[in-house]
Amino acid sequence: MVNWLPTLKTTTPEEGYDLAVKLARVAVKLTQPDADARDRLRPEYAEDSGALIAVSQVVATHFATVAVANGYWQDRT
Amino acid sequence: MVNWLPTLKTTTPEEGYDLAVKLARVAVKLTQPDADARDRLRPEYAEDSGALIAVSQVVATHFATVAVANGYWQDRT
Amino acid sequence: MVNWLPTLKTTTPEEGYDLAVKLARVAVKLTQPDADARDRLRPEYAEDSGALIAVSQVVATHFATVAVANGYWQDRT
Amino acid sequence: MVNWLPTLKTTTPEEGYDLAVKLARVAVKLTQPDADARDRLRPEYAEDSGALIAVSQVVATHFATVAVANGYWQDRT
Amino acid sequence: MVNWLPTLKTTTPEEGYDLAVKLARVAVKLTQPDADARDRLRPEYAEDSGALIAVSQVVATHFATVAVANGYWQDRT
Amino acid sequence: MVNWLPTLKTTTPEEGYDLAVKLARVAVKLTQPDADARDRLRPEYAEDSGALIAVSQVVATHFATVAVANGYWQDRT
Repeated sequence: MVNWLPTLKTTTPEEGYDLAVKLARVAVKLTQPDADARDRLRPEYAEDSGALIAVSQVVATHFATVAVANGYWQDRT
Repeated sequence: MVNWLPTLKTTTPEEGYDLAVKLARVAVKLTQPDADARDRLRPEYAEDSGALIAVSQVVATHFATVAVANGYWQDRT
Repeated sequence: MVNWLPTLKTTTPEEGYDLAVKLARVAVKLTQPDADARDRLRPEYAEDSGALIAVSQVVATHFATVAVANGYWQDRT
Repeated sequence: MVNWLPTLKTTTPEEGYDLAVKLARVAVKLTQPDADARDRLRPEYAEDSGALIAVSQVVATHFATVAVANGYWQDRT
Repeated sequence: MVNWLPTLKTTTPEEGYDLAVKLARVAVKLTQPDADARDRLRPEYAEDSGALIAVSQVVATHFATVAVANGYWQDRT
Repeated sequence: MVNWLPTLKTTTPEEGYDLAVKLARVAVKLTQPDADARDRLRPEYAEDSGALIAVSQVVATHFATVAVANGYWQDRT
Protein backbone atom coordinates (compact mmCIF):
# COMPACT_ATOMS: atom_id res chain seq x y z
CA MET A 1 0.00 0.00 0.00
CA VAL A 2 1.59 3.22 -1.15
CA ASN A 3 0.49 6.75 -0.45
CA TRP A 4 -2.93 5.81 0.84
CA LEU A 5 -2.96 8.50 3.56
CA PRO A 6 -1.56 11.77 2.24
CA THR A 7 -3.42 13.87 4.83
CA LEU A 8 -5.98 13.71 7.64
CA LYS A 9 -7.74 16.76 6.24
CA THR A 10 -11.16 16.38 4.66
CA THR A 11 -13.61 18.90 3.32
CA THR A 12 -16.67 17.66 5.20
CA PRO A 13 -17.43 15.67 8.38
CA GLU A 14 -18.85 12.95 6.15
CA GLU A 15 -15.59 12.57 4.27
CA GLY A 16 -13.87 12.52 7.65
CA TYR A 17 -16.07 9.64 8.67
CA ASP A 18 -15.23 7.79 5.46
CA LEU A 19 -11.55 8.33 6.21
CA ALA A 20 -12.08 6.86 9.69
CA VAL A 21 -13.62 3.77 8.10
CA LYS A 22 -10.59 3.49 5.82
CA LEU A 23 -8.19 3.87 8.74
CA ALA A 24 -10.00 1.06 10.54
CA ARG A 25 -9.74 -1.26 7.54
CA VAL A 26 -6.07 -0.73 6.76
CA ALA A 27 -4.91 -2.26 10.05
CA VAL A 28 -6.82 -5.41 9.17
CA LYS A 29 -5.11 -5.50 5.77
CA LEU A 30 -1.69 -5.04 7.32
CA THR A 31 -2.32 -7.83 9.82
CA GLN A 32 -3.89 -10.19 7.29
CA PRO A 33 -2.29 -9.22 3.95
CA ASP A 34 -3.81 -12.15 2.08
CA ALA A 35 -6.84 -10.74 0.20
CA ASP A 36 -8.33 -14.22 -0.24
CA ALA A 37 -8.19 -14.86 3.49
CA ARG A 38 -9.92 -11.53 4.14
CA ASP A 39 -12.60 -12.40 1.60
CA ARG A 40 -13.24 -15.67 3.42
CA LEU A 41 -13.70 -13.78 6.70
CA ARG A 42 -16.03 -11.12 5.35
CA PRO A 43 -19.31 -13.11 5.10
CA GLU A 44 -18.66 -14.41 8.60
CA TYR A 45 -18.26 -11.09 10.39
CA ALA A 46 -20.83 -9.30 8.25
CA GLU A 47 -23.41 -11.61 9.87
CA ASP A 48 -21.98 -11.23 13.37
CA SER A 49 -23.43 -8.31 15.31
CA GLY A 50 -20.55 -8.40 17.80
CA ALA A 51 -18.02 -7.98 14.99
CA LEU A 52 -20.02 -5.19 13.35
CA ILE A 53 -20.23 -3.28 16.64
CA ALA A 54 -16.49 -3.80 17.19
CA VAL A 55 -15.77 -2.36 13.74
CA SER A 56 -17.94 0.61 14.66
CA GLN A 57 -15.86 1.08 17.81
CA VAL A 58 -12.64 1.25 15.79
CA VAL A 59 -14.24 3.75 13.43
CA ALA A 60 -15.31 5.86 16.41
CA THR A 61 -11.76 5.96 17.73
CA HIS A 62 -10.35 7.02 14.37
CA PHE A 63 -13.15 9.52 13.80
CA ALA A 64 -12.15 11.24 17.04
CA THR A 65 -8.64 11.70 15.66
CA VAL A 66 -9.79 12.87 12.23
CA ALA A 67 -12.25 15.31 13.79
CA VAL A 68 -9.51 16.99 15.83
CA ALA A 69 -7.25 17.13 12.78
CA ASN A 70 -9.99 19.06 11.00
CA GLY A 71 -10.84 21.39 13.87
CA TYR A 72 -14.22 19.65 14.01
CA TRP A 73 -15.00 21.32 10.67
CA GLN A 74 -16.06 24.38 12.70
CA ASP A 75 -15.84 26.75 9.79
CA ARG A 76 -18.75 24.91 8.22
CA THR A 77 -21.25 25.39 11.02
CA MET B 1 -25.83 7.53 2.06
CA VAL B 2 -25.55 11.12 0.99
CA ASN B 3 -25.16 14.19 3.14
CA TRP B 4 -26.03 12.46 6.39
CA LEU B 5 -23.48 14.41 8.46
CA PRO B 6 -23.45 18.07 7.48
CA THR B 7 -22.06 19.20 10.84
CA LEU B 8 -21.11 17.99 14.32
CA LYS B 9 -22.88 20.98 15.87
CA THR B 10 -26.08 20.43 17.81
CA THR B 11 -28.24 22.79 19.81
CA THR B 12 -28.46 20.68 22.96
CA PRO B 13 -26.46 17.92 24.69
CA GLU B 14 -29.39 15.60 24.05
CA GLU B 15 -29.24 16.17 20.30
CA GLY B 16 -25.49 15.62 20.57
CA TYR B 17 -26.16 12.26 22.15
CA ASP B 18 -28.59 11.36 19.38
CA LEU B 19 -25.93 12.29 16.85
CA ALA B 20 -23.48 9.99 18.65
CA VAL B 21 -25.99 7.14 18.34
CA LYS B 22 -26.29 7.89 14.62
CA LEU B 23 -22.51 7.96 14.20
CA ALA B 24 -22.32 4.55 15.89
CA ARG B 25 -24.93 3.05 13.57
CA VAL B 26 -23.55 4.31 10.27
CA ALA B 27 -20.36 2.28 10.57
CA VAL B 28 -22.47 -0.85 10.91
CA LYS B 29 -24.41 0.11 7.78
CA LEU B 30 -21.22 0.73 5.83
CA THR B 31 -19.78 -2.64 6.89
CA GLN B 32 -23.02 -4.56 6.33
CA PRO B 33 -24.81 -2.59 3.59
CA ASP B 34 -27.53 -5.21 3.17
CA ALA B 35 -30.56 -3.91 5.11
CA ASP B 36 -32.15 -7.35 5.23
CA ALA B 37 -29.03 -8.81 6.82
CA ARG B 38 -29.03 -6.04 9.42
CA ASP B 39 -32.71 -6.70 10.13
CA ARG B 40 -31.89 -10.36 10.75
CA LEU B 41 -29.21 -9.37 13.25
CA ARG B 42 -31.29 -6.88 15.18
CA PRO B 43 -33.50 -9.23 17.26
CA GLU B 44 -30.38 -11.20 18.15
CA TYR B 45 -28.28 -8.36 19.56
CA ALA B 46 -31.26 -6.55 21.06
CA GLU B 47 -31.56 -9.54 23.41
CA ASP B 48 -27.82 -9.77 24.08
CA SER B 49 -26.65 -7.65 26.99
CA GLY B 50 -23.04 -7.85 25.82
CA ALA B 51 -23.97 -6.41 22.43
CA LEU B 52 -26.10 -3.66 23.98
CA ILE B 53 -23.25 -2.63 26.27
CA ALA B 54 -20.83 -2.68 23.33
CA VAL B 55 -23.15 -0.38 21.38
CA SER B 56 -23.22 1.92 24.40
CA GLN B 57 -19.41 1.97 24.36
CA VAL B 58 -19.33 3.10 20.74
CA VAL B 59 -21.89 5.80 21.51
CA ALA B 60 -19.73 6.97 24.44
CA THR B 61 -16.70 7.32 22.18
CA HIS B 62 -18.62 9.33 19.60
CA PHE B 63 -20.33 11.42 22.28
CA ALA B 64 -16.89 12.47 23.51
CA THR B 65 -16.10 13.79 20.03
CA VAL B 66 -19.44 15.52 19.56
CA ALA B 67 -19.19 17.12 23.00
CA VAL B 68 -15.82 18.68 22.18
CA ALA B 69 -17.12 19.88 18.82
CA ASN B 70 -19.86 21.71 20.70
CA GLY B 71 -17.66 23.16 23.43
CA TYR B 72 -19.57 20.93 25.86
CA TRP B 73 -22.58 23.19 25.26
CA GLN B 74 -21.10 25.46 27.94
CA ASP B 75 -23.15 28.45 26.95
CA ARG B 76 -26.25 26.60 28.09
CA THR B 77 -25.21 26.03 31.68
CA MET C 1 -37.19 10.26 26.39
CA VAL C 2 -37.52 14.01 26.55
CA ASN C 3 -35.16 16.51 28.07
CA TRP C 4 -33.12 13.96 29.99
CA LEU C 5 -29.80 15.74 29.40
CA PRO C 6 -30.18 19.49 29.82
CA THR C 7 -26.49 20.01 30.64
CA LEU C 8 -23.22 18.19 31.29
CA LYS C 9 -22.54 20.41 34.30
CA THR C 10 -22.73 18.94 37.78
CA THR C 11 -21.96 20.40 41.17
CA THR C 12 -19.69 17.60 42.39
CA PRO C 13 -17.50 14.87 40.88
CA GLU C 14 -19.87 12.33 42.39
CA GLU C 15 -22.83 13.77 40.54
CA GLY C 16 -20.65 13.77 37.44
CA TYR C 17 -20.08 10.07 37.92
CA ASP C 18 -23.80 9.47 38.32
CA LEU C 19 -24.38 11.37 35.08
CA ALA C 20 -21.82 9.13 33.36
CA VAL C 21 -23.74 6.07 34.56
CA LYS C 22 -26.93 7.60 33.14
CA LEU C 23 -25.23 8.36 29.82
CA ALA C 24 -24.11 4.72 29.63
CA ARG C 25 -27.62 3.42 30.26
CA VAL C 26 -29.49 5.62 27.79
CA ALA C 27 -27.72 4.08 24.76
CA VAL C 28 -28.96 0.68 25.90
CA LYS C 29 -32.50 2.03 26.17
CA LEU C 30 -32.33 3.57 22.72
CA THR C 31 -31.06 0.32 21.20
CA GLN C 32 -33.50 -1.90 23.11
CA PRO C 33 -36.52 0.35 23.74
CA ASP C 34 -38.64 -2.49 25.12
CA ALA C 35 -38.51 -2.15 28.92
CA ASP C 36 -39.65 -5.74 29.41
CA ALA C 37 -36.81 -7.03 27.25
CA ARG C 38 -34.34 -4.97 29.27
CA ASP C 39 -35.79 -6.35 32.49
CA ARG C 40 -35.27 -9.87 31.20
CA LEU C 41 -31.61 -9.10 30.46
CA ARG C 42 -30.84 -7.48 33.80
CA PRO C 43 -30.57 -10.58 36.06
CA GLU C 44 -28.36 -12.17 33.41
CA TYR C 45 -25.74 -9.45 33.11
CA ALA C 46 -25.89 -8.53 36.80
CA GLU C 47 -24.43 -12.00 37.45
CA ASP C 48 -21.89 -11.78 34.63
CA SER C 49 -18.59 -10.23 35.65
CA GLY C 50 -17.64 -9.60 32.03
CA ALA C 51 -20.78 -7.57 31.48
CA LEU C 52 -20.33 -5.63 34.72
CA ILE C 53 -16.77 -4.72 33.76
CA ALA C 54 -17.93 -3.71 30.27
CA VAL C 55 -20.54 -1.41 31.81
CA SER C 56 -17.80 0.09 33.96
CA GLN C 57 -15.77 0.73 30.80
CA VAL C 58 -18.61 2.68 29.23
CA VAL C 59 -19.04 4.69 32.42
CA ALA C 60 -15.31 5.46 32.39
CA THR C 61 -15.51 6.80 28.84
CA HIS C 62 -18.47 9.03 29.66
CA PHE C 63 -16.93 10.15 32.94
CA ALA C 64 -13.91 11.41 30.98
CA THR C 65 -16.24 13.61 28.92
CA VAL C 66 -18.24 14.85 31.89
CA ALA C 67 -15.05 15.63 33.82
CA VAL C 68 -13.73 17.85 31.02
CA ALA C 69 -17.09 19.58 30.72
CA ASN C 70 -16.80 20.48 34.41
CA GLY C 71 -13.17 21.56 34.32
CA TYR C 72 -12.44 18.57 36.55
CA TRP C 73 -14.31 20.40 39.33
CA GLN C 74 -11.01 22.20 40.02
CA ASP C 75 -12.61 24.98 41.97
CA ARG C 76 -13.55 22.46 44.63
CA THR C 77 -10.05 21.25 45.44
CA MET D 1 -22.71 5.44 48.65
CA VAL D 2 -22.35 8.95 49.95
CA ASN D 3 -19.54 11.37 49.40
CA TRP D 4 -17.12 8.80 48.04
CA LEU D 5 -15.60 11.16 45.45
CA PRO D 6 -15.04 14.61 46.94
CA THR D 7 -12.31 15.49 44.42
CA LEU D 8 -10.20 14.10 41.57
CA LYS D 9 -7.07 15.65 43.10
CA THR D 10 -4.45 13.40 44.61
CA THR D 11 -1.03 14.13 46.03
CA THR D 12 0.90 11.52 44.06
CA PRO D 13 0.51 9.58 40.78
CA GLU D 14 0.21 6.41 42.85
CA GLU D 15 -2.78 7.77 44.76
CA GLY D 16 -4.18 8.82 41.40
CA TYR D 17 -3.90 5.25 40.21
CA ASP D 18 -5.65 4.01 43.35
CA LEU D 19 -8.44 6.49 42.68
CA ALA D 20 -8.74 5.13 39.13
CA VAL D 21 -9.14 1.63 40.55
CA LYS D 22 -11.86 2.92 42.86
CA LEU D 23 -13.63 4.69 39.99
CA ALA D 24 -13.60 1.42 38.04
CA ARG D 25 -15.13 -0.52 40.93
CA VAL D 26 -17.93 1.87 41.78
CA ALA D 27 -19.69 1.37 38.44
CA VAL D 28 -19.78 -2.35 39.14
CA LYS D 29 -21.32 -1.68 42.56
CA LEU D 30 -23.93 0.64 41.09
CA THR D 31 -24.88 -1.93 38.45
CA GLN D 32 -24.86 -4.88 40.85
CA PRO D 33 -25.72 -3.35 44.24
CA ASP D 34 -26.03 -6.74 45.96
CA ALA D 35 -22.76 -7.28 47.84
CA ASP D 36 -23.38 -11.02 48.11
CA ALA D 37 -23.78 -11.30 44.35
CA ARG D 38 -20.53 -9.40 43.84
CA ASP D 39 -18.80 -11.71 46.30
CA ARG D 40 -19.98 -14.71 44.30
CA LEU D 41 -18.53 -13.21 41.11
CA ARG D 42 -15.16 -12.30 42.56
CA PRO D 43 -13.48 -15.77 42.68
CA GLU D 44 -14.67 -16.34 39.12
CA TYR D 45 -13.20 -13.24 37.51
CA ALA D 46 -10.09 -13.25 39.70
CA GLU D 47 -9.17 -16.50 37.94
CA ASP D 48 -10.12 -15.24 34.48
CA SER D 49 -7.30 -13.50 32.65
CA GLY D 50 -9.74 -11.88 30.22
CA ALA D 51 -11.67 -10.29 33.08
CA LEU D 52 -8.49 -9.11 34.81
CA ILE D 53 -7.27 -7.47 31.61
CA ALA D 54 -10.69 -5.86 31.09
CA VAL D 55 -10.55 -4.42 34.62
CA SER D 56 -7.11 -3.06 33.80
CA GLN D 57 -8.58 -1.38 30.70
CA VAL D 58 -11.20 0.41 32.76
CA VAL D 59 -8.54 1.53 35.22
CA ALA D 60 -6.46 2.87 32.31
CA THR D 61 -9.37 4.94 31.05
CA HIS D 62 -10.04 6.42 34.49
CA PHE D 63 -6.33 6.98 35.13
CA ALA D 64 -6.20 9.13 31.99
CA THR D 65 -8.92 11.34 33.45
CA VAL D 66 -7.38 11.53 36.91
CA ALA D 67 -3.97 12.33 35.43
CA VAL D 68 -5.33 15.31 33.51
CA ALA D 69 -7.19 16.53 36.59
CA ASN D 70 -3.88 16.57 38.41
CA GLY D 71 -1.87 18.20 35.65
CA TYR D 72 0.04 14.92 35.39
CA TRP D 73 1.55 15.75 38.79
CA GLN D 74 4.12 17.84 36.88
CA ASP D 75 5.19 19.82 39.88
CA ARG D 76 6.62 16.63 41.34
CA THR D 77 9.03 15.85 38.52
CA MET E 1 14.46 -4.82 22.27
CA VAL E 2 16.76 -1.83 22.27
CA ASN E 3 16.14 1.63 20.90
CA TRP E 4 13.08 0.66 18.89
CA LEU E 5 11.23 3.93 19.60
CA PRO E 6 13.59 6.89 19.34
CA THR E 7 10.79 9.35 18.62
CA LEU E 8 7.05 9.62 17.92
CA LYS E 9 7.73 12.00 15.03
CA THR E 10 7.13 10.82 11.49
CA THR E 11 7.30 12.63 8.17
CA THR E 12 3.91 11.57 6.86
CA PRO E 13 0.56 10.38 8.27
CA GLU E 14 1.21 7.05 6.61
CA GLU E 15 4.47 6.56 8.49
CA GLY E 16 2.59 7.59 11.61
CA TYR E 17 0.11 4.82 10.96
CA ASP E 18 2.93 2.32 10.49
CA LEU E 19 4.39 3.45 13.81
CA ALA E 20 1.00 2.87 15.45
CA VAL E 21 1.00 -0.68 14.09
CA LYS E 22 4.46 -1.18 15.53
CA LEU E 23 3.41 0.22 18.91
CA ALA E 24 0.51 -2.24 18.95
CA ARG E 25 2.76 -5.19 18.21
CA VAL E 26 5.47 -4.47 20.76
CA ALA E 27 3.14 -4.96 23.72
CA VAL E 28 2.36 -8.43 22.42
CA LYS E 29 6.06 -9.19 22.16
CA LEU E 30 6.71 -7.95 25.69
CA THR E 31 3.86 -10.09 27.07
CA GLN E 32 4.74 -13.17 25.02
CA PRO E 33 8.52 -12.89 24.46
CA ASP E 34 8.79 -16.38 22.94
CA ALA E 35 8.92 -15.85 19.15
CA ASP E 36 7.94 -19.45 18.48
CA ALA E 37 4.84 -19.11 20.61
CA ARG E 38 3.88 -15.95 18.73
CA ASP E 39 4.41 -17.73 15.43
CA ARG E 40 2.03 -20.48 16.56
CA LEU E 41 -0.63 -17.89 17.39
CA ARG E 42 -0.35 -15.93 14.14
CA PRO E 43 -2.22 -18.29 11.73
CA GLU E 44 -4.98 -18.58 14.32
CA TYR E 45 -5.71 -14.88 14.79
CA ALA E 46 -5.05 -14.02 11.15
CA GLU E 47 -8.14 -16.11 10.36
CA ASP E 48 -10.20 -14.70 13.22
CA SER E 49 -12.13 -11.56 12.31
CA GLY E 50 -12.65 -10.67 15.98
CA ALA E 51 -8.90 -10.69 16.57
CA LEU E 52 -8.19 -8.66 13.45
CA ILE E 53 -10.72 -6.02 14.48
CA ALA E 54 -9.24 -5.96 18.00
CA VAL E 55 -5.78 -5.37 16.53
CA SER E 56 -7.24 -2.52 14.49
CA GLN E 57 -8.65 -1.03 17.71
CA VAL E 58 -5.23 -1.01 19.34
CA VAL E 59 -3.74 0.60 16.24
CA ALA E 60 -6.47 3.27 16.34
CA THR E 61 -5.63 4.11 19.95
CA HIS E 62 -1.92 4.41 19.20
CA PHE E 63 -2.57 6.36 15.98
CA ALA E 64 -4.44 8.96 18.05
CA THR E 65 -1.33 9.44 20.18
CA VAL E 66 1.07 9.54 17.24
CA ALA E 67 -1.17 12.02 15.39
CA VAL E 68 -1.12 14.47 18.31
CA ALA E 69 2.65 14.08 18.64
CA ASN E 70 2.93 15.16 15.01
CA GLY E 71 0.47 18.03 15.19
CA TYR E 72 -1.74 16.01 12.84
CA TRP E 73 0.85 16.67 10.12
CA GLN E 74 -0.93 20.01 9.56
CA ASP E 75 1.97 21.57 7.73
CA ARG E 76 1.41 19.06 4.95
CA THR E 77 -2.17 19.98 4.15
CA MET F 1 3.09 -2.08 46.60
CA VAL F 2 4.79 1.05 47.84
CA ASN F 3 6.13 3.93 45.84
CA TRP F 4 5.99 2.15 42.50
CA LEU F 5 4.93 5.25 40.56
CA PRO F 6 6.87 8.30 41.70
CA THR F 7 6.34 10.16 38.42
CA LEU F 8 4.95 9.82 34.90
CA LYS F 9 8.08 11.44 33.46
CA THR F 10 10.48 9.34 31.46
CA THR F 11 13.60 10.25 29.53
CA THR F 12 12.70 8.51 26.29
CA PRO F 13 9.53 7.35 24.48
CA GLU F 14 10.75 3.79 24.95
CA GLU F 15 10.88 4.18 28.72
CA GLY F 16 7.44 5.75 28.48
CA TYR F 17 6.20 2.63 26.74
CA ASP F 18 7.72 0.45 29.44
CA LEU F 19 5.95 2.54 32.04
CA ALA F 20 2.67 2.02 30.17
CA VAL F 21 3.24 -1.74 30.32
CA LYS F 22 3.85 -1.47 34.06
CA LEU F 23 0.70 0.62 34.54
CA ALA F 24 -1.28 -2.06 32.71
CA ARG F 25 0.08 -4.85 34.91
CA VAL F 26 -0.45 -3.18 38.27
CA ALA F 27 -4.24 -3.15 37.92
CA VAL F 28 -4.13 -6.91 37.42
CA LYS F 29 -2.03 -7.29 40.57
CA LEU F 30 -4.40 -5.13 42.58
CA THR F 31 -7.42 -7.14 41.38
CA GLN F 32 -5.74 -10.53 41.81
CA PRO F 33 -3.20 -9.98 44.62
CA ASP F 34 -2.33 -13.69 44.87
CA ALA F 35 0.95 -14.13 42.97
CA ASP F 36 0.42 -17.88 42.65
CA ALA F 37 -2.97 -17.35 41.04
CA ARG F 38 -1.44 -14.90 38.58
CA ASP F 39 1.31 -17.41 37.77
CA ARG F 40 -1.34 -20.02 37.00
CA LEU F 41 -3.05 -17.62 34.58
CA ARG F 42 0.09 -16.55 32.73
CA PRO F 43 0.70 -19.62 30.53
CA GLU F 44 -2.97 -19.54 29.58
CA TYR F 45 -3.18 -15.96 28.36
CA ALA F 46 0.33 -15.98 26.88
CA GLU F 47 -1.01 -18.55 24.40
CA ASP F 48 -4.26 -16.70 23.78
CA SER F 49 -4.07 -14.14 20.98
CA GLY F 50 -7.23 -12.42 22.19
CA ALA F 51 -5.72 -11.86 25.62
CA LEU F 52 -2.43 -10.63 24.17
CA ILE F 53 -4.24 -8.11 21.98
CA ALA F 54 -6.34 -6.98 24.96
CA VAL F 55 -3.17 -6.40 26.97
CA SER F 56 -1.83 -4.35 24.06
CA GLN F 57 -5.01 -2.26 24.16
CA VAL F 58 -4.52 -1.43 27.81
CA VAL F 59 -0.90 -0.51 27.13
CA ALA F 60 -2.05 1.77 24.30
CA THR F 61 -4.43 3.59 26.60
CA HIS F 62 -1.76 4.13 29.25
CA PHE F 63 0.84 5.09 26.65
CA ALA F 64 -1.46 7.89 25.52
CA THR F 65 -1.47 9.26 29.07
CA VAL F 66 2.27 8.88 29.57
CA ALA F 67 2.97 10.53 26.22
CA VAL F 68 0.97 13.63 27.15
CA ALA F 69 2.67 13.78 30.54
CA ASN F 70 5.99 13.92 28.70
CA GLY F 71 4.96 16.44 26.08
CA TYR F 72 5.38 13.65 23.53
CA TRP F 73 9.13 13.89 24.18
CA GLN F 74 9.16 16.75 21.64
CA ASP F 75 12.48 18.13 22.77
CA ARG F 76 14.11 14.95 21.48
CA THR F 77 12.98 15.22 17.88
